[in-house]
Amino acid sequence: MYGKIALEEAWAIRENFKAYDIATLAPKGVIGGDLVANLLDIHGTRLHQMDENGVDMMVLSLSSPGPQGPANRQEAEDLARLANDRLAAEVSRAPARFAALASVSMHDPGQAAEELRRCMKDLTGFVGVIINDYQSAGEDKNTMLFFDRPEYDAFWEVAEELDCPVYLHPREATPLIFDQMWKDRPWLAFSALGYAHRIGMHVLGIVTAGVLDRFPKLKIVIGHMGEHIPYDLYRIDHKLNRARFPDMPMAKDKLVRDYFGSQLFITTSGHFSTPALLCAMQEIGAEAIMFSIDYPFESIPNGCVWFDNHVPIGNRDLVDIGRNNALRVFKRLTKWPHMLEERGPRECGVGGLGLRKGAEGEVEHGLYNRSWDAREKHN
Amino acid sequence: MYGKIALEEAWAIRENFKAYDIATLAPKGVIGGDLVANLLDIHGTRLHQMDENGVDMMVLSLSSPGPQGPANRQEAEDLARLANDRLAAEVSRAPARFAALASVSMHDPGQAAEELRRCMKDLTGFVGVIINDYQSAGEDKNTMLFFDRPEYDAFWEVAEELDCPVYLHPREATPLIFDQMWKDRPWLAFSALGYAHRIGMHVLGIVTAGVLDRFPKLKIVIGHMGEHIPYDLYRIDHKLNRARFPDMPMAKDKLVRDYFGSQLFITTSGHFSTPALLCAMQEIGAEAIMFSIDYPFESIPNGCVWFDNHVPIGNRDLVDIGRNNALRVFKRLTKWPHMLEERGPRECGVGGLGLRKGAEGEVEHGLYNRSWDAREKHN
Amino acid sequence: MYGKIALEEAWAIRENFKAYDIATLAPKGVIGGDLVANLLDIHGTRLHQMDENGVDMMVLSLSSPGPQGPANRQEAEDLARLANDRLAAEVSRAPARFAALASVSMHDPGQAAEELRRCMKDLTGFVGVIINDYQSAGEDKNTMLFFDRPEYDAFWEVAEELDCPVYLHPREATPLIFDQMWKDRPWLAFSALGYAHRIGMHVLGIVTAGVLDRFPKLKIVIGHMGEHIPYDLYRIDHKLNRARFPDMPMAKDKLVRDYFGSQLFITTSGHFSTPALLCAMQEIGAEAIMFSIDYPFESIPNGCVWFDNHVPIGNRDLVDIGRNNALRVFKRLTKWPHMLEERGPRECGVGGLGLRKGAEGEVEHGLYNRSWDAREKHN
Amino acid sequence: MYGKIALEEAWAIRENFKAYDIATLAPKGVIGGDLVANLLDIHGTRLHQMDENGVDMMVLSLSSPGPQGPANRQEAEDLARLANDRLAAEVSRAPARFAALASVSMHDPGQAAEELRRCMKDLTGFVGVIINDYQSAGEDKNTMLFFDRPEYDAFWEVAEELDCPVYLHPREATPLIFDQMWKDRPWLAFSALGYAHRIGMHVLGIVTAGVLDRFPKLKIVIGHMGEHIPYDLYRIDHKLNRARFPDMPMAKDKLVRDYFGSQLFITTSGHFSTPALLCAMQEIGAEAIMFSIDYPFESIPNGCVWFDNHVPIGNRDLVDIGRNNALRVFKRLTKWPHMLEERGPRECGVGGLGLRKGAEGEVEHGLYNRSWDAREKHN
Repeated sequence: MYGKIALEEAWAIRENFKAYDIATLAPKGVIGGDLVANLLDIHGTRLHQMDENGVDMMVLSLSSPGPQGPANRQEAEDLARLANDRLAAEVSRAPARFAALASVSMHDPGQAAEELRRCMKDLTGFVGVIINDYQSAGEDKNTMLFFDRPEYDAFWEVAEELDCPVYLHPREATPLIFDQMWKDRPWLAFSALGYAHRIGMHVLGIVTAGVLDRFPKLKIVIGHMGEHIPYDLYRIDHKLNRARFPDMPMAKDKLVRDYFGSQLFITTSGHFSTPALLCAMQEIGAEAIMFSIDYPFESIPNGCVWFDNHVPIGNRDLVDIGRNNALRVFKRLTKWPHMLEERGPRECGVGGLGLRKGAEGEVEHGLYNRSWDAREKHN
Repeated sequence: MYGKIALEEAWAIRENFKAYDIATLAPKGVIGGDLVANLLDIHGTRLHQMDENGVDMMVLSLSSPGPQGPANRQEAEDLARLANDRLAAEVSRAPARFAALASVSMHDPGQAAEELRRCMKDLTGFVGVIINDYQSAGEDKNTMLFFDRPEYDAFWEVAEELDCPVYLHPREATPLIFDQMWKDRPWLAFSALGYAHRIGMHVLGIVTAGVLDRFPKLKIVIGHMGEHIPYDLYRIDHKLNRARFPDMPMAKDKLVRDYFGSQLFITTSGHFSTPALLCAMQEIGAEAIMFSIDYPFESIPNGCVWFDNHVPIGNRDLVDIGRNNALRVFKRLTKWPHMLEERGPRECGVGGLGLRKGAEGEVEHGLYNRSWDAREKHN
Repeated sequence: MYGKIALEEAWAIRENFKAYDIATLAPKGVIGGDLVANLLDIHGTRLHQMDENGVDMMVLSLSSPGPQGPANRQEAEDLARLANDRLAAEVSRAPARFAALASVSMHDPGQAAEELRRCMKDLTGFVGVIINDYQSAGEDKNTMLFFDRPEYDAFWEVAEELDCPVYLHPREATPLIFDQMWKDRPWLAFSALGYAHRIGMHVLGIVTAGVLDRFPKLKIVIGHMGEHIPYDLYRIDHKLNRARFPDMPMAKDKLVRDYFGSQLFITTSGHFSTPALLCAMQEIGAEAIMFSIDYPFESIPNGCVWFDNHVPIGNRDLVDIGRNNALRVFKRLTKWPHMLEERGPRECGVGGLGLRKGAEGEVEHGLYNRSWDAREKHN
Repeated sequence: MYGKIALEEAWAIRENFKAYDIATLAPKGVIGGDLVANLLDIHGTRLHQMDENGVDMMVLSLSSPGPQGPANRQEAEDLARLANDRLAAEVSRAPARFAALASVSMHDPGQAAEELRRCMKDLTGFVGVIINDYQSAGEDKNTMLFFDRPEYDAFWEVAEELDCPVYLHPREATPLIFDQMWKDRPWLAFSALGYAHRIGMHVLGIVTAGVLDRFPKLKIVIGHMGEHIPYDLYRIDHKLNRARFPDMPMAKDKLVRDYFGSQLFITTSGHFSTPALLCAMQEIGAEAIMFSIDYPFESIPNGCVWFDNHVPIGNRDLVDIGRNNALRVFKRLTKWPHMLEERGPRECGVGGLGLRKGAEGEVEHGLYNRSWDAREKHN
């Protein structure tokens, strides 16, 4: 599919590496090629691979944990400002191909709102904001600030006012929690499992705290095919038993299910599973799902080949998930300087028996193997 | 789901029974209650069951074969006119609950267009037209007129001009074909199999003849979950090998798949199968699917309970398939005298763990059995 | 997946070409490479492609219509015998890689049974029988002999006695039917649609005639993902209304659905559609489905890449559909001279994130695109 | 479906209530009827509802946390022994309808193995063992003993030797973790989310620690549709990057996916979601899934109506998931004193258009609403 938009795509600045131990980044060769180089690059390898894989637009964000990492407030705020200024400059070099999610320190909700306003009003290229789970705080870095606390309404209010979707992205555990639960099985602590646990709890905390009710135009986006939530939606809603939990602030006549597609959205970042996508479509609907890759922690061609060739869904759903839904949620992508427009299946090269150029008269040949008689080297 | 719209719903006039042998109608008790009485009724039992089952609107049409039955042209044209006048009168008694598909004789494409124009311009309540497969002709009733022949462009042109969707409905075989293929296994000749065979061939004939290319705003609707086509779409498109069939008129750069959702639509009439619906959604997309029942050949509550309670799809897809898609295809339903509007899941009572009134605080109780401890008598 | 078994794979002898007009065979280049050469070949290109695509075993059969084509009885019987003798000889050259379905003339049920007995008892390499829809008869070739007629019990009885599965394969229409229905749209007459119509009616005729009830160990196999039947199973069973059709001979307490997996089976031949496969698995269960290609009318690598890499189903279902179910249905494949055995996912190279050799330590790399950064030329 | 077996069904003794604060149990009316009474009952209401809902057998276990609750070793061991003796007595009153999972303290792996041996060898009615997540230990109850630690091989070894499947059941967080993560959003702390987080990490810890490799006949069962794992299996396996985590002990040539169906199994307890079940079937296969309810935390009729009437899967898969798989995993159910046997769809009343008695001649009537014209009061 041509014209794809990808939303959870990381980028880094060397100053961010100071915020966490660069040694925790996978060394060269362990995740794809050179992770550090790929994080720093925008207009080189990344753009080349976007071209090769039908990705029109990448919405970039500072790699996790970003400003959520520093337990020191000043450090966090400085990092956010620095990253936002740098990203604005990078995006302005190719605004038809790149846009930005703002970074904000969440130590102080008012300051976060202020920085968000600065990005959305004074800088160009910002279409939303990313928050990497809880804000670290406290001297021992074990304090977790969660944004379902009432004091963060000051932030949500401004995000809603600015029509600025909030991407909630995972991060690692605090030292205390890591020691308690993960240190004997560190391979589970990060993207394999721990990430989804922590951010899943946080986003459900925000929803059940009534944030989406108090700010009915607020939009929240989560990655990784919904951080387990779509699969468990029946059970989650069933067990949020109002008789048992009369103090739960979420609207009494709504279920978590009801927010998807209007205020809650998921992306496919880093979870290229067809059964999971089909399950999510049945539970929350195609209108709540958007394509993403999670580059450079995931391979651009692997994610795109999956989406372009392996996903057995209707043409319209494909282009909505691959492109149009992103324009409906991140509306700034349709405005200057990005100026992206919705497209139909045909304009995206979707149709025929699959994605291909010059399909005329080619119906007979294979959808799965272009050559009639030789198995193409693939997988 | 409240607010459903049903599109393939039969009605009859006693004069129509003359057109075919009333003995071929199932006797009392064989199909539901009293088939003849149910066909003749509109504002009694039918409306009551609509109320009980959340059906806002039934789009009525003369029962098959209607004017396609009489091999005599005059007889067919007279029947169409009579039925249209009668149906206009019936609909005008409750235009918020009923609308009409026009009947036309297809002996002469020009006359069919004229009668269609009369219904859509001079009468009220018509939102589309229904054609019951081929037109019988010839003295022995064995001639089949198919509308993929070039002379029928005169009809398609007017249907497009009037923005009048064409519902292609099945009918029985000619005597000759019946004798050759079905007479030793008559139980397969009708709705179990033969109907889908004949109308499936006809609609694919129309598409591959390029009718939808020549009239790019024309919309065609077929019932019974697509008359087998969505399941076989890969194979159909794969085997419509342009190298093998260079004379096939359909646009060379399109596949049958590409017309679904913009010019081709299906309904669920008479095929309340969840696996089939899920397959259709994957192949042609929710935007190409509309709810229907096929009353009184099918039970209203059976079709509605299936759709309301058994279909495991997202809220938005449910209300689009149940209601909104019909308003996008049959646009006249949104105009005077029907004045229907699109609705969201909440307005349709969709959400929560299922369809129910007064859901507040009821999350804990069962989605499938309202009583906690007693199995409700059902199935 | 290594170790696949393919069941509906055509082969021809030059003498068979006389039975139908060779001009109706697609010329060189229209279907894959050289159709005539591919039909005649067994141990060359075919075996090479089997090796390259993980196909252990092809069960070969004379290309359609085989002996069902000649309206002349003697001609049909001679062709069957000739083809069977030739195929036995071919299979004996590589019985670990090839097995045979017997061909039989169906002019006379007793003679058909006799020839079947000869193949299964006196010759080696036969594991089942193939019948290409109806038997042509009559001087004008318009007579269709259908095997749901009571006189064919003589044949079914012997097939059951020999534990010989019967593969029911489609064929073209009679001249009369062709003229009535297909001649204005010939591209629909064959594999795109007409094949499924005719054989679908025939197999449902056989089931509803009670053949499977009278011969409870008889097994029938149909190709092309079930010739539309799984998608429509709800409707078929619903409409085989016993109150309406009290004379239908099928067991009164059974539905068509109930025969799948024990007496009725389908294969994937020529219909490499994931939504259709998922629908079939939901309706009839994985135990009723077997892999097949339909070579040389379909491309071996296209069918195999689909099955190996694109089908999102569990490991066990994959190897059952790809191999083990065939051994349970065609039991002779487990006997001398074929000696095939059931295998688990691991033995078939299934597991890990996909099919690959030497998976150790390769989990990180992509399932869909082996290279991390370059999009492989595929589709 | 008649003949269902349910595996994760709680029962309690008054002495167990001492182990945790009875006030944490939902008061009367909050979960179904009277939770305390339902936990204490076996042969009354429970059996009556089993009869009414086609449940042949309930495998009972002491309600969570059972012996995993007491941080004091002696207390935990005493509770296990007491519960096991009591449960043996209860089961012996109706061994055709009830069987038992043993409870064990996991303070000491050797003692746990000993108690397990006692249950499986000296007592009757035990078919497996249940462990409620981590073992609480330490004076402040904040120590969590996890069974992926090498010292627990002593326990796994005996479980394997006894062919005793281990059901890993969730429990609540330690006070420390609760304070850190859940106390501001307690509605998420238990069955809505926290349970799955904790037990999901534990079971993946056990698998990635190589326990299933060292004990290749050991079987582990988890409830709640797999505690999120099937949905995320692609991502989990993809991110358990051996290059990044060279010290992970699990077999280098296997993925988590590969254990399902032979050593890892899930049940449907408390998660009656069709999209989730379909997703699980695609990811791990029907052979890895077993029916369960989670009574009395869930309603028996709600779970059974879902499984009997709403699940759109093949007949064979239905009876395997509903009954037969349980007999293959918990093999003691087929032995004295339980003597259960595998059944086919027909023996379970599965087939026809749905589950019903006396289906003869009833094909016409509705699958979803038994009455033709009145909507049955249901939901």
